[in-house]
Amino acid sequence: MGYALLDAASDPPTILDRGLVPVLASASPADRLVAIANSLDALIARHAPTALALERLYFNKNAKTAMRVAEARGVAMLCAARGGLTVAEYTPQEVKLSVTGSGSADKQQVQRMLTLVLALDEAITQDNIADAVAIALAHVQRARFGAAVALAST
Amino acid sequence: MGYALLDAASDPPTILDRGLVPVLASASPADRLVAIANSLDALIARHAPTALALERLYFNKNAKTAMRVAEARGVAMLCAARGGLTVAEYTPQEVKLSVTGSGSADKQQVQRMLTLVLALDEAITQDNIADAVAIALAHVQRARFGAAVALAST
Repeated sequence: MGYALLDAASDPPTILDRGLVPVLASASPADRLVAIANSLDALIARHAPTALALERLYFNKNAKTAMRVAEARGVAMLCAARGGLTVAEYTPQEVKLSVTGSGSADKQQVQRMLTLVLALDEAITQDNIADAVAIALAHVQRARFGAAVALAST
Repeated sequence: MGYALLDAASDPPTILDRGLVPVLASASPADRLVAIANSLDALIARHAPTALALERLYFNKNAKTAMRVAEARGVAMLCAARGGLTVAEYTPQEVKLSVTGSGSADKQQVQRMLTLVLALDEAITQDNIADAVAIALAHVQRARFGAAVALAST
């Protein structure tokens, strides 16, 4: 499971932390969830973020994989809610649309836009981490758009 | 989400507790998961069970519902593993086969068998609770069968 922490107060947003939650391949499904929860609890304690954005994925070629991913997402939502974070969910299409302007962008296009928008020295090429950065950025963009609309309508 | 706690030491097994985790219909997905986790943590603290058995369901007519159920299952597995319980998963077919002798039994057949096998004064007719009792009973039967096979093979 990839994760990324963005500081939304700076412009462009700054990546505070990013990585993969370490999970043993040999771990049981339950032990895997404990490892994820412990890592997320530690990240939340360290950075005190205010929101968690997650990928919402309903369909998958492999139903068993999709269910295991959903179980992990449930654990992430629980850690966030118990930590006082708001929880938002975005479909892959919403993330691509927000980051690149196209809901059907491919991984390379998303990674290129992340490099540009976040002014990165080099591209993030690890798929799960790039996905996490993109989801976090989509949430920041959505929140800013929401604030701009609210300002315009007052 | 239905739950049932069985005392496997008695014969037939005794239902120690059963019910539905109270969740507000208006709760957000994240708050729903917090309510489930808090209820399960309280049940685990009160009864100190040694194992959690869960329904494993890969397919569902409604993909969105299936994902929400899987998220809740992930939270239940996390609470169990953090509480030191072993976690087992059974498909609906495995549960029906264990409880009734037929993997294609209907709900009424399962509920009738529960009444007989557990010597209940009256049938459990609330579907989610009956399912929970059946899953717990299937786990007890599986564990006893495993112990009998181990004994027979020594």
